[in-house]
Amino acid sequence: MRGTVIHGTRDIRLEDRDDPTIVNPTDAIVRTVASCVCGSDLWRYRGIQQVTTPTPIGHEYVGVVEAVGADVTTVTPGQFVVGGFLTSDNTCPVCQAGAHANCLNVTGYDGCQAELIRVQNADGTLLATPEQPYDAMVPSLLALSDVMCTGWHAAVSAEVRPGSTVVVVGDGAVGLSGVLAASQLGAEHVIAMSRHPDRQALAREFGATDVIPQRGDEGVEAVKELTNGIGADSVLECVGTDESVVQALKSARPGGMVGLVGVPHVSDIPQAHMFWRNVGLRGGPAPVRAYLPDLLDQVLSGQINPGKVFDLTLPLSEVAEAYAAMDQRRAIKTMLMP
Amino acid sequence: MRGTVIHGTRDIRLEDRDDPTIVNPTDAIVRTVASCVCGSDLWRYRGIQQVTTPTPIGHEYVGVVEAVGADVTTVTPGQFVVGGFLTSDNTCPVCQAGAHANCLNVTGYDGCQAELIRVQNADGTLLATPEQPYDAMVPSLLALSDVMCTGWHAAVSAEVRPGSTVVVVGDGAVGLSGVLAASQLGAEHVIAMSRHPDRQALAREFGATDVIPQRGDEGVEAVKELTNGIGADSVLECVGTDESVVQALKSARPGGMVGLVGVPHVSDIPQAHMFWRNVGLRGGPAPVRAYLPDLLDQVLSGQINPGKVFDLTLPLSEVAEAYAAMDQRRAIKTMLMP
Repeated sequence: MRGTVIHGTRDIRLEDRDDPTIVNPTDAIVRTVASCVCGSDLWRYRGIQQVTTPTPIGHEYVGVVEAVGADVTTVTPGQFVVGGFLTSDNTCPVCQAGAHANCLNVTGYDGCQAELIRVQNADGTLLATPEQPYDAMVPSLLALSDVMCTGWHAAVSAEVRPGSTVVVVGDGAVGLSGVLAASQLGAEHVIAMSRHPDRQALAREFGATDVIPQRGDEGVEAVKELTNGIGADSVLECVGTDESVVQALKSARPGGMVGLVGVPHVSDIPQAHMFWRNVGLRGGPAPVRAYLPDLLDQVLSGQINPGKVFDLTLPLSEVAEAYAAMDQRRAIKTMLMP
Repeated sequence: MRGTVIHGTRDIRLEDRDDPTIVNPTDAIVRTVASCVCGSDLWRYRGIQQVTTPTPIGHEYVGVVEAVGADVTTVTPGQFVVGGFLTSDNTCPVCQAGAHANCLNVTGYDGCQAELIRVQNADGTLLATPEQPYDAMVPSLLALSDVMCTGWHAAVSAEVRPGSTVVVVGDGAVGLSGVLAASQLGAEHVIAMSRHPDRQALAREFGATDVIPQRGDEGVEAVKELTNGIGADSVLECVGTDESVVQALKSARPGGMVGLVGVPHVSDIPQAHMFWRNVGLRGGPAPVRAYLPDLLDQVLSGQINPGKVFDLTLPLSEVAEAYAAMDQRRAIKTMLMP
């Protein structure tokens, strides 16, 4: 099969690789219908995270089950399935508590920007659609594999409730998904922080009631002007830099909550912006399997259309261009068709 | 009147001071029935926080209203009242959101270890009991002024719910109040971290189901042994050192929540223990007025007896000894009677 391998900074190659096989009886093999490039893949692409050896890459996918191990009971060959960016067994005490991204048997993938994918813990990871979806629905189903569930996790972590006033920091695919999530969870005001007209437009389509182009302390001041002078009930932090985390904490009202999903590149959290203001912080990798049943229903019923974050579609053979387009901000998110 | 003034490290004096007077029409003057020494007062007593000028001290009290300003409508002279360690107007947008400790018009006190106290924003700060309480009830009413509401805030911030498994780090008056709060909020397992037999006993009386004497990583391991190997749903951090915050974060299960009320002499929060484990952190000064109506009912009905944290009672004239006893850990918490 063909699969994407990152060899180093800005060195993405589609290569011939061995077909994956069933190793454990809980595995499934999925033939990819669509995959995509994640903002987090760009950390390695840009060399911020070093690549020391050629590594298969990609962790988002939808596809059709090709084969299952002897112990797999909930999906069968031929079914269209969605799976999260990490596998989960959906049975361990951590999964039972709803924190599937931290499953005691969590695994990643050996590269999902590929034609075939080995999915460990298939029963606890994959969810099948009742029937084969229309092609037009594929992008929104693919979005459930990461960005939509991650945006949803930001909103849940930030305790968005009916009537909430919400700020979303970050206008990438996750931030935009966070806008959609906040809106679906009943927020009354959803303030998107964005300075790009195309992303502002999609944010509004996803339910943003206000858009603020300023950043940093200017952005915080603009938020306060829209929030009784006190800040937002909930803030979704979907970037992951020191600056954006501070901006998010300062945008929350006293007693408010920040949902953090954009981390990896933050040093310690500056508690000066938390304790004395009673501002909380929560988040991490999204427990996709926890949200998947509900969000799959929302997609299948047409209630949400998170696939709109894909503004570029390329064949898998052009995966290098898919990375370049996102790196150069020519695309919000690129979908890859094998 | 006589009032307590801190002059420097371990230099506490009861002095003759001017009687406080009504300055604003929203003020009340309260004649103290009981006050007490707070763990946070010890930061200055021990010289960890420098005292550069003689400063009236104390922020916990119950008393009888002596006089009220022209605009005060909810309390009248002669009523027995409880007030929190910070004043609040109970009407601003922040108070309306329930974060009274961050009230837009918040103030402190000019020393509550005194015979008379000026209470600003009396309507938004004080709550009167329906009748004069029995003497035996005074300690529990006094506990509402800070420690019980602070322990409650830790439990609420840590999202303690019916059936939760809870760890309480810290066995001072706040930690013990946190045990009581977690128990009242329906926790199924309440694990108190304590190595002092008298405090262990009170923790059990307050509802602790388990007691762990180990600290640090040994304490974390002991917690895991009691929690399916994964840690607690909720952790109440009632100390405020770097070590105790890390211990608290590590004691939470993936997806769990830490409620932080130990006044942090903490540098930044080590996010390594948060993001990848999906462990959240929330807390700060307690919004006393938000919890006071409910907790006052619980005390008056005999449902809770948080005053048991007072294991030493002294006349106000012996305030210096009250500090020494707590500093030397001869007392958990000292009550002062004028």
